[in-house]
Amino acid sequence: MQIGLIGLGKMGFNLALNLMEHGHQVTAYDIDEQLVKKISAEGAKGITSLEELKSLSAPRVIWMMVPAGDITENVFQEVLPHLEKGDILIDGGNAHYKDSIRRGEQASAQGVYYLDCGTSGGTEGARHGVCVMIGGNKEAFDQVEQVFDDISVENGYLYTGEIGSGHFLKMIHNGIEYGMMQAIAEGFDLLEKSPFDYDYEKVSRVWNNGSVIRSWLMELMESAFSKDEKLDAIKGVMHSSGEGKWTVETALDFQTAAPVIALSLMMRYRSLEEDTFSGKVVAALRNEFGGHAVVKKEE
Amino acid sequence: MQIGLIGLGKMGFNLALNLMEHGHQVTAYDIDEQLVKKISAEGAKGITSLEELKSLSAPRVIWMMVPAGDITENVFQEVLPHLEKGDILIDGGNAHYKDSIRRGEQASAQGVYYLDCGTSGGTEGARHGVCVMIGGNKEAFDQVEQVFDDISVENGYLYTGEIGSGHFLKMIHNGIEYGMMQAIAEGFDLLEKSPFDYDYEKVSRVWNNGSVIRSWLMELMESAFSKDEKLDAIKGVMHSSGEGKWTVETALDFQTAAPVIALSLMMRYRSLEEDTFSGKVVAALRNEFGGHAVVKKEE
Repeated sequence: MQIGLIGLGKMGFNLALNLMEHGHQVTAYDIDEQLVKKISAEGAKGITSLEELKSLSAPRVIWMMVPAGDITENVFQEVLPHLEKGDILIDGGNAHYKDSIRRGEQASAQGVYYLDCGTSGGTEGARHGVCVMIGGNKEAFDQVEQVFDDISVENGYLYTGEIGSGHFLKMIHNGIEYGMMQAIAEGFDLLEKSPFDYDYEKVSRVWNNGSVIRSWLMELMESAFSKDEKLDAIKGVMHSSGEGKWTVETALDFQTAAPVIALSLMMRYRSLEEDTFSGKVVAALRNEFGGHAVVKKEE
Repeated sequence: MQIGLIGLGKMGFNLALNLMEHGHQVTAYDIDEQLVKKISAEGAKGITSLEELKSLSAPRVIWMMVPAGDITENVFQEVLPHLEKGDILIDGGNAHYKDSIRRGEQASAQGVYYLDCGTSGGTEGARHGVCVMIGGNKEAFDQVEQVFDDISVENGYLYTGEIGSGHFLKMIHNGIEYGMMQAIAEGFDLLEKSPFDYDYEKVSRVWNNGSVIRSWLMELMESAFSKDEKLDAIKGVMHSSGEGKWTVETALDFQTAAPVIALSLMMRYRSLEEDTFSGKVVAALRNEFGGHAVVKKEE
């Protein structure tokens, strides 16, 4: 199938290779012309303007693989005018599901099908077998189902229903991921503070073989500890890219208790600060009412 | 190898079958004589008093597979006088690591080796391949290493160091398990409250194929949803068997933040109450200061 691919970052580039490996003809665009050249060398047809997507035979299938937020919005608004009735536009990024619903409505108004496709599995997945959750018009999905089948691992794609449901499901996936990661992290933290002397690579390995907590995340721990047995080279600063926050906001919208996902996010925020104002406040109050010593800031 | 097995509950019975399948001669005891008869029919030598363990050839290898707490303590105190210098006593249950350290010292005082062995993988694991973490004297471990190798999955056993380190590691494993389970639970709860109509068996399946959160727990979700698509037959009451509580107590001992594991435990406790006194207190206060309506209890 002819596929127009917008975005040749780590995910998009690997996806292009994955698509071509499965016999699809990829017409690829990125604002970085070096990446366009690089993917052309791999067999894709490189283009340097979105207008050139028109050259694809109708109905066109366009896959956007760009960062969520403004970039997705800008690319969407820029590419939509070049599309025609019956074309299919897939957003493989991490958009907020409410944005996807809105974009779906806008696309639908000019007869373009919009599929919101949550993509998991990292860059390695994008290259060799991804896990995708796809919402949107069912007939449009049926037309491109073979593509999802080709690029995903076995049983690794799911049509999830109406527009927004793909990105919603991916968002929840990431929220669960936050909680699982924080649980694993707290466990290793307690091992590190224990009176025992564990080899964490071996601990991860034994936990990956027959235990209840065996998981891909634990396999990644085994790999990380094999390279750096106490993670000495890494600072414990935990960034986040937005899906955890959206999951917590969604829990608030739904008036639903999700304390573990919420606290996972808060612990990430805590890790961004060397010192905290809340810490100062509590220390000051203990000093005020009980004369408890405070730790003075070094000059 | 000759192995004395104490306890023929779900775990012990399956472990006996697993041991015999690997050529070990099992001498089995349980207070329930029906279970002793049942395992005898499978090829074990059934005994009806702990004293008969003396009949094993020295050095004896005894595996206790009984519930943690008083039962473990009672069995330990009852069996120890029957053992001699050089014998090896293995506790395969979920004892608190501090109790295991104390028991190790008591056993050591009469020359008996004590191994604290954390066992994961459920009854299916006990039968077909378990995951075990073993602390205690290294020479004693070396003598029985083959047994652990036989009963576990590949790479599924680990010698963890000094006495107590096996049960400590198993406790942390269970703490992580609490957090992972609660994260998964919150995710599905948000799906259930969403405007979308997901098939949870299919969701679990796609998440198990290529996603970041693929895990044995998610495979168990797939299995559970395949039998009951909305878990209608199950009430959301979450019992716990102690290891999560110990993990949180350990975090308190170590003055270490483990909010996800702690909240997972608290949410289990919350689930045990239909109504809460804390809920009444907050409702009463809102009524007092703001005249906010309270929900009246039905007569």
